[in-house]
Amino acid sequence: MTKWVYNFGKLGTDGDSSMRNLLGGKGANLAEMSGIGLPVPPGFTISTDVCTYFYDHNHTYPDTLDAEVRAAIVKIEAETGSAFADPKNPLLVSVRSGARASMPGMMDTVLNLGLNDETAAGLAKHANDSRFAYDSYRRFIQMYGDVVMDVDHGLFEDALEDMKRERGLINDTDLTGDDMMALVAIYKDIVMEEMDTPFPQDPWEQLWGAIGAVFTSWTNTRAATYRRLNNIPAAWGTAVNVQAMVFGNMGDDCATGVAFTRDPSTGENSFYGEFLINAQGEDVVAGIRTPLPLTAKEREKSGSSAASLQEAMPEVFAQLDDVRSRLEAHYRDMQDLEFTVQQGTLYMLQTRSGKRTAEAALRMAVEMAEENLISRDEALCRIDANALDQLLHPTLDPKAEKICLTRGLPASPGAACGKIVLSADRAEEMAAAGETVILVRLETSPEDIHGMHAAAGILTARGGMTSHAAVVARGMGRACVCGAGDVRFDQVSGKIFIQDQVLSEGDLITIDGANGDVYAGAVDTIQPKMSGAFGTIMKWADERRRLGVRANAETTTDAQVALDFGAEGIGLCRTEHMFFDADRIIAMRQMIMANNTEGREAALAKLLPMQRKDFESLFTIMAGRPVTIRLLDPPLHEFLPHSADELAEVAEVSGVTVETARQRAVKLSESNPMLGHRGCRLAITYPEICRMQARAIFEAACAVAQTTGDVPSPEIMVPLAATAREISLCKQEIDAAAAAVTAETGVSVSYLVGTMVELPRSSICAAELAEEAEFFSFGTNDLTQTALGISRDDAGSFLHHYADADIYPVDPFVSIDREGVGFLVDMGVKRGRTTRPDIKLGICGEHGGDADSICFFEEVGLDYVSCSPFRVPAARLAAAQAAIKNSA
Amino acid sequence: MTKWVYNFGKLGTDGDSSMRNLLGGKGANLAEMSGIGLPVPPGFTISTDVCTYFYDHNHTYPDTLDAEVRAAIVKIEAETGSAFADPKNPLLVSVRSGARASMPGMMDTVLNLGLNDETAAGLAKHANDSRFAYDSYRRFIQMYGDVVMDVDHGLFEDALEDMKRERGLINDTDLTGDDMMALVAIYKDIVMEEMDTPFPQDPWEQLWGAIGAVFTSWTNTRAATYRRLNNIPAAWGTAVNVQAMVFGNMGDDCATGVAFTRDPSTGENSFYGEFLINAQGEDVVAGIRTPLPLTAKEREKSGSSAASLQEAMPEVFAQLDDVRSRLEAHYRDMQDLEFTVQQGTLYMLQTRSGKRTAEAALRMAVEMAEENLISRDEALCRIDANALDQLLHPTLDPKAEKICLTRGLPASPGAACGKIVLSADRAEEMAAAGETVILVRLETSPEDIHGMHAAAGILTARGGMTSHAAVVARGMGRACVCGAGDVRFDQVSGKIFIQDQVLSEGDLITIDGANGDVYAGAVDTIQPKMSGAFGTIMKWADERRRLGVRANAETTTDAQVALDFGAEGIGLCRTEHMFFDADRIIAMRQMIMANNTEGREAALAKLLPMQRKDFESLFTIMAGRPVTIRLLDPPLHEFLPHSADELAEVAEVSGVTVETARQRAVKLSESNPMLGHRGCRLAITYPEICRMQARAIFEAACAVAQTTGDVPSPEIMVPLAATAREISLCKQEIDAAAAAVTAETGVSVSYLVGTMVELPRSSICAAELAEEAEFFSFGTNDLTQTALGISRDDAGSFLHHYADADIYPVDPFVSIDREGVGFLVDMGVKRGRTTRPDIKLGICGEHGGDADSICFFEEVGLDYVSCSPFRVPAARLAAAQAAIKNSA
Repeated sequence: MTKWVYNFGKLGTDGDSSMRNLLGGKGANLAEMSGIGLPVPPGFTISTDVCTYFYDHNHTYPDTLDAEVRAAIVKIEAETGSAFADPKNPLLVSVRSGARASMPGMMDTVLNLGLNDETAAGLAKHANDSRFAYDSYRRFIQMYGDVVMDVDHGLFEDALEDMKRERGLINDTDLTGDDMMALVAIYKDIVMEEMDTPFPQDPWEQLWGAIGAVFTSWTNTRAATYRRLNNIPAAWGTAVNVQAMVFGNMGDDCATGVAFTRDPSTGENSFYGEFLINAQGEDVVAGIRTPLPLTAKEREKSGSSAASLQEAMPEVFAQLDDVRSRLEAHYRDMQDLEFTVQQGTLYMLQTRSGKRTAEAALRMAVEMAEENLISRDEALCRIDANALDQLLHPTLDPKAEKICLTRGLPASPGAACGKIVLSADRAEEMAAAGETVILVRLETSPEDIHGMHAAAGILTARGGMTSHAAVVARGMGRACVCGAGDVRFDQVSGKIFIQDQVLSEGDLITIDGANGDVYAGAVDTIQPKMSGAFGTIMKWADERRRLGVRANAETTTDAQVALDFGAEGIGLCRTEHMFFDADRIIAMRQMIMANNTEGREAALAKLLPMQRKDFESLFTIMAGRPVTIRLLDPPLHEFLPHSADELAEVAEVSGVTVETARQRAVKLSESNPMLGHRGCRLAITYPEICRMQARAIFEAACAVAQTTGDVPSPEIMVPLAATAREISLCKQEIDAAAAAVTAETGVSVSYLVGTMVELPRSSICAAELAEEAEFFSFGTNDLTQTALGISRDDAGSFLHHYADADIYPVDPFVSIDREGVGFLVDMGVKRGRTTRPDIKLGICGEHGGDADSICFFEEVGLDYVSCSPFRVPAARLAAAQAAIKNSA
Repeated sequence: MTKWVYNFGKLGTDGDSSMRNLLGGKGANLAEMSGIGLPVPPGFTISTDVCTYFYDHNHTYPDTLDAEVRAAIVKIEAETGSAFADPKNPLLVSVRSGARASMPGMMDTVLNLGLNDETAAGLAKHANDSRFAYDSYRRFIQMYGDVVMDVDHGLFEDALEDMKRERGLINDTDLTGDDMMALVAIYKDIVMEEMDTPFPQDPWEQLWGAIGAVFTSWTNTRAATYRRLNNIPAAWGTAVNVQAMVFGNMGDDCATGVAFTRDPSTGENSFYGEFLINAQGEDVVAGIRTPLPLTAKEREKSGSSAASLQEAMPEVFAQLDDVRSRLEAHYRDMQDLEFTVQQGTLYMLQTRSGKRTAEAALRMAVEMAEENLISRDEALCRIDANALDQLLHPTLDPKAEKICLTRGLPASPGAACGKIVLSADRAEEMAAAGETVILVRLETSPEDIHGMHAAAGILTARGGMTSHAAVVARGMGRACVCGAGDVRFDQVSGKIFIQDQVLSEGDLITIDGANGDVYAGAVDTIQPKMSGAFGTIMKWADERRRLGVRANAETTTDAQVALDFGAEGIGLCRTEHMFFDADRIIAMRQMIMANNTEGREAALAKLLPMQRKDFESLFTIMAGRPVTIRLLDPPLHEFLPHSADELAEVAEVSGVTVETARQRAVKLSESNPMLGHRGCRLAITYPEICRMQARAIFEAACAVAQTTGDVPSPEIMVPLAATAREISLCKQEIDAAAAAVTAETGVSVSYLVGTMVELPRSSICAAELAEEAEFFSFGTNDLTQTALGISRDDAGSFLHHYADADIYPVDPFVSIDREGVGFLVDMGVKRGRTTRPDIKLGICGEHGGDADSICFFEEVGLDYVSCSPFRVPAARLAAAQAAIKNSA
C-alpha cells in the first residue's frame, strides 16, 4: 500500500532531504532537520504523489489518506501535549505548500488552523492572553477566507482599517483583545455575506479545506507563470506540510526571523539575517515593521540603535549560530533559514539552499572549495552558468524606482537606458553626437547592424529569442528585448505606442535584457565588476571540461572579446555580415543585379580584396587557432533595399534600368526565405561566389602565414547542405582555389572543408554527408526551425501560449529540444562517425551558449561548442559542469 | 580480371537480355536476338563499366580493353569473311551508344567506320559499286567529322547542296559515283580547314575516336537534359555497340525499316511499320523520302499506291513477320524493331520494348493478358500509372503547328488554350461571358481560387510542383504550368513579357500541363476518350491492391469526381478552402480583426452554419465513407487582402479603424508563413476556432445520419502537431463539441481524432503523438519542405539547377525523397505503431498520387493514400503495382 503521509518530530521522522521529489523541498528539509536533532515543531508532509493523484482523479484523494492524516495528527498531539479541536489546549497547525523546487510566495499558506469560537476561547485561557488568541483567530479567518473560500482579502483589511479609524488608532498592535474579538465577529459576517456559508467551525473541515486549497493552488495562474519562467514541470506537483504552530508573537520573549548562513549578496562568509521581536513570520515579509539585523556587526554597519538578536537574546542567538554551523556543514551549502522564538525557545521552521546573486554564488563556491567544505567539482556545479552573464553586463539597480511599460523576451542580457531612436542611421548619428540611444524597431535586418552597434540597447516589437536582433545583440554584447508585441509604430506621426503611452524619438527609455522588461524614463544601472573568484572558477572549469569552446564572431572587435573571454577559436564566422558596409553593399548589389556570370564575377572581383582583408584580420587575431568560415548563407534579396528610391539608386550604380532592378528584386523575393534560395544553394547556382570567398580565405591565410609565422587553420563550412553532392560541388571550387593560391604564393595552407548540419535531412543522411565533409557543425537554430516547423522570427505570436500550455515548457530556441532536435543531432553524430570516425563535430547555433544544451552536447560527444563572445565564460563553465555530470 | 567486352554473333554470344545494366538496352537485346538465332550482324558491346571507368579515370580506358576489342574485331572478321582495314574486302562497322534506358537520338552514332581512301577504293571494287562505296565514305566523313571531331555539320551539307546546284540536280540519289568521290575530297578539305588536322585514315584510330565520342556524349547537354526529364541517373553510364555494317542501300533488293509488333498508337494487335527500298536507316528517320507502310492492310488504309514490304518482298516480309511473332512471344511485350535487308537477306539491328501511348499501353496490357501472353499482374505493371493522367485530360494535337514561347514546370496535366487574363476576377467575368481563359499570374493565392476555377488553365511565373497554383489546379483537374520564370509582368502597362514577346489580356495562349510548354496562339487539342480497357485495368487493380485510395477534396464537385474515379473516402478536406467565398471571407476577416475571444466567437457564429452545410454536402455524397477533415491550417494573414483599399473595406465591415486594421495586418504578417502561426497553433491560441469547426462537423454528421441513414465517419485531423499535448488540447475541444451535439440531437457519431504528421519532430516523436492520435496522415508536402529545408513556393529558382547537377535527380515534391523524407515517414509509422499497433496510417501530400511514392508507401505499410480526384485512377493502379512488387 502506498504511504501518503510522512511524519517528522521527536517521536519519529519518516523522511530526509534526499526525498525532495516526494516531500517537496520544505518537507524534506523539515524531516532532515528533525532527523539531525534540530528543534523543529512536529508535523507531517502529504506527499507530491497525492497531488498527482488529486489531479488525475478529479480533485479527490486516495482512500487511505484520511486515516493516515488522522494518525499523524495524533503524533503531533502526543509531542505537543495539545489536542486538535480540544477547547482546553487546542493544537493549532500551519498548512503550507512545498514543491520540489522553491517557489516562494507562489502558492498558498494557512496559519493558526484549528481555531474556532470554542478553541479560541480555550487558547485565550490556556495562554492567558485573550488578545493573542483572538488576533490569531482573526488572522486565521482572513487567511482561510482568502485562500480556501476565495473571499476578497481587501474586505478584511478594510474592516481592520475601519476599526482602527473608529478607535483613532494607528498600529494593529494598539488594538485590544476585545477589539480583536469584535473583529473576529465582523470577519465571520464578511464570510457569511460574501460566500453565503458560515466560516467553518470544525477544525477537521478546516484542515481538509486548507489541504485542498494548497493542491489547487499548484495550478493557479501565478504558480503556472512562475513555473514557466523557472522551467518547473507542472507534473512535479506540490506536497503539503502540516505542522504544529509556534508563535513569535506571544510577548517580548518571542521573535521571528530569517537568516542566511552567508551573505547572499556578496557571498561573504558571515551570518546575515533579520528578525522582529514579538511578531509572526508574515510580519517580517509584509514590511509593516522594519526588521532588525541579526548580528551586532551588522547592526553597527547599518548604524541602527535597536539591539540585534545577538545582543537582545544572546542565548538564543548562540543556539541559532550553532544551528547555522551545523546546517552549513550538513548541507554543505549556504542555507536560507526561518526561525521562530516562542517564549525563549528556538524553533527552526525551514532551511533551504539560499538564493544568491551570481557574484555571491561565485565567491561562495570558490571559498567553500578552499575551505574543503565542498570539492572543486561541486564548486563548479554550484554556479548557474546561464546566470554568469549577469557578471558581464550592467544590471538595473534593484533599489531604483521604475515604471514598467511592457515586457518582451529577454533576448540579450544587460540593462541599458537611453534615448529612443527609430532608425539605424539616426542611432549612429546620435551616438556620434555623444548620446546614449536605444534602437527601437519593428524588427531588425542586416541593414541595421551599424545602428545596433551604435546603440546601447535594442528593443523590437517582433521576433523571438533567435531573431536577427537577438542573435546580433548577443553577439555584440548589447542589451536587447525582443518581440515586445505591445510596441506599435505610427508611421505617419513617427511616434511609438506602448499600451496607452505615447513616446517619441528622443524620449528616455530603459530596457532590461535579462528579464525582458521595458521601463519608462531612465532607471539607474549598476556596472558589473569581475572578482578574483571569476578567474579561479574559469581556471577550474578549463581543467575539468572536455568540450572545446569557440566563439561566433566575424569582426575584429568580437574576435578580440572572444579571445579575452577564453575562446579557443572561431566556430562560426558569418561572412555575409562582412558585406553590409557602405562601400561593400554597392558591389554586392551590383553582383545581384548582374544577369550573367561575367557581370557577377566583375562585382565579386571588387569584393575579393575587402573580404581578404577581413580574413587577414581574423587570422591575425586568432593566431593559428581554428577559424570556421561559413560561405555566404542568406538569400540575395536580404542585400537589396526595401524602398523604391533606394532601389533606383541600386539600379543606377549597377547600370540597369529601374524596371529591370524592380523585376530582379521581385524575382528574388521569396515567400519563405528561411527555406529559400540560400546557403550552399547560392554556391551551386552561382559558383563564382564560392570561388571568390575561397580565394579570399586562402590569399588571406597565405599572407598571414608569411607575415606572422602563425599558420592559420581555416575550416571552410558549406551551409545548408542536405546531400553529399552539394558539399562535393563546393569542395571542387574550394580545392581549386586552394591549389591556385598555393601555386601563386608558394605557401600551402592546410584546411578542412565541412558542412553545417542544419536540416533534418542532413542529420538523417549524415553518413553520406561525411563522405565529403571533414567536419560537421550543427546549426541548431535552423535545425530547430525545420524540425519543429517554427520560424524563429514569427514564433513570438504563439510561443508564449505554448509555454503557458506546457507544450514546449522551455523555449526550444533557448534550450535544445532533446526529444526532437536532440534526436537529430545525436543521429547526425552517430551516422557521421560511421563513415568518418574522426570527424570533427561542433555546434554553432545559439544553443552553444546555453548550459542545458551544452550538457546535451557533452552527452552526445561533440568536440566543441561555439557561442557569442559574451557567452564564452558561461559556456566554459557549463562544459565543465557537463563533463562532471557525464562522468558521474 | 574484369571482362569489358561482350561478343554477339554466330560464333558465340556472351550476353543476354538480362544484362541490360551492363550492356545497355541495345547491346543486351542484340545479344538476346543473336542467342535465339535471329539474323543479327555480328558485333560486340563495350560495357557500361567501361563508361564508369572512363569518367572515374579522367577519360582513359582500362588497360586490357584494347586487347579485348581487337579480339572481338577478329571474331567479326571470322563471321563476315571481311577484315578490318583490309583494302580488299574491308570490314565496316557501326559504333552506337546504348544505355540501360532508351534515350533515342540523345547520343551519338557513327556508321560505315573503317572506310579510308584505300578501303573505300577496295569496297568499290568488291561491291562493284563505286557510287555506293563513295556515298558511304562521304557519309562516314560527315558523321565522324560531326560527332568525333566537332566539325560543324552544316559545312558538309552546304557542300552537298553546292554540288547539287552546280550539277543542276535535286535529289542526292541523282549524284554519281564520281560526284561522291569529289565530295569525299571536299569533305576531307573541310575537316583539314576547320580542325587543322587531316581526316584520320587509320581505321583503328577511327574506332577509338568513335568509342571515345560515344562515351563523351553521355554527358552532353542534350543527354543530360533528357536524363533529367526522364529520371535517368548519370551514374548508369552508356555501353558502346560495335557491329558489322549491313547495307540497305546497295540496290533495289535492299531495304531498311522500323516496325512495331502492335500498333503503338492504338494498341491494336496488328503489325505496324515503315520501310524504304534502297536506303540506309538514317534515311527513314531523316524524312527526306517518305517511308512506305509495311503491310498490305496498312497500305490500303493509307490509300498509297506504292507497294508495301509485304507486297514488294513477300519472302522477306514473311521472315520478318515470323521474327515479329518470335520476338513478342519471347519478350512477352510489344517490340520496336529495326531491320535492314541487304541484297535480299534480312538482318535485325535492334529490338526493344516499344514506346506507346497511354491508350495503347492500356489496350495491349489487357489484350495480352486475355491472350495469356502475360499474367494480369504483368498487365498491371505494364502501364505507367503516372501517364494514366493523359487519358483523363485533353492533350495537344501532335500534328498541330506550334510556336513554343517558354517552358515552365508540368504542374497539372492537360492542355488548354484560351485568352490571357491577369486577375481572378477578370477570369470569372470573362468565363461568365462564355470565353475560355488562361489565368496568368506571378503566383496564386487562396484568393484566386474562383478565378482558377473559372479558367481552363493556369500559368504562373513562380512556384514549384507543389505551389498553391499546382496543388489547387491538380485538385480541380485544371491544366497548369508553374514557375515559368521567363514570364514577366509590367504593372504599368498591364502587359506580360515572355522572352521578347509582348502579350496583353485577351491574347490567345496555349499551355501543356503535361510537359510545361507554353505556346503562342491557339494550338489544337484532342479530347480524351476512355476505353473499355480502362475499366478492366481498374477492376484488376482494385482486386490486387492492398492500399486504400482516397481523394483530397472539399467541394461537392471534387468529391463527386473523386467518387466517380473510385475514391474510397476523403483523405483530406482542407476546411480553409471553404472560407474564401465572398459571403464567408467577410466573417472570417471580422474574426481576424476581433481582438478578443468574444469578438472572434461572434464572427465564428456566422461561419458555423455555412461550414455545417459544407460538411453536410460532403457527408451526403460520401455516404458513410470516411471523410478526413483537417482543422483550419493556414496562417490568418492569408485571409486578409493585400491592398490598402481592400483593407479599408475590411476595417469598415469589422468596425475597427483603418489604422487598427493596418496594425493588425502588420502584426499578423510573417517572415516565413510556412513555419509560422498556423496549423494547430491556431487552435491552441484561438480554441474557439477549433470549437466552431468541431461543432459544425458533428452537427452536420448528426443531421446527415438522421436524414439519409448513412452515418458519416468523420476523422478529424489536427494539423502541424509536433507534440502529443497539442493533439490532446485540440481533442478536448473536439470531444466536448461531440458530447454537446450528441446531448442536443440524441445522435451519437463515432469519430476519430488524429494528426497530420508533417514535421520532422512529429515523426521522431510519433510514439508520443500516437498516445493521443487515433490516426496519422503523413503530410509529405510540408514534411519535404521542412526535412529538406526547401520552400515549395521558392524552389523554382534553384531546383532545376539541382536536377541538372544531379543533387536531387527527381523533384522531391513530385516523388518522395526516400533517403530523407522517406526515412521520417518510415520512422513515424514504426514509432506510431509501438504505442498504438492498430493506428490508421495514411498520406495526403501530393505524393499520394505519384506512382513511385505509392510504391514506397506500400513498402512502409501505410493503410491508404489520398490524392487529387483526377489522380485517383493512377493511384489505384500504382497501388496495385506496388502490391505486386512488394509480394515479389
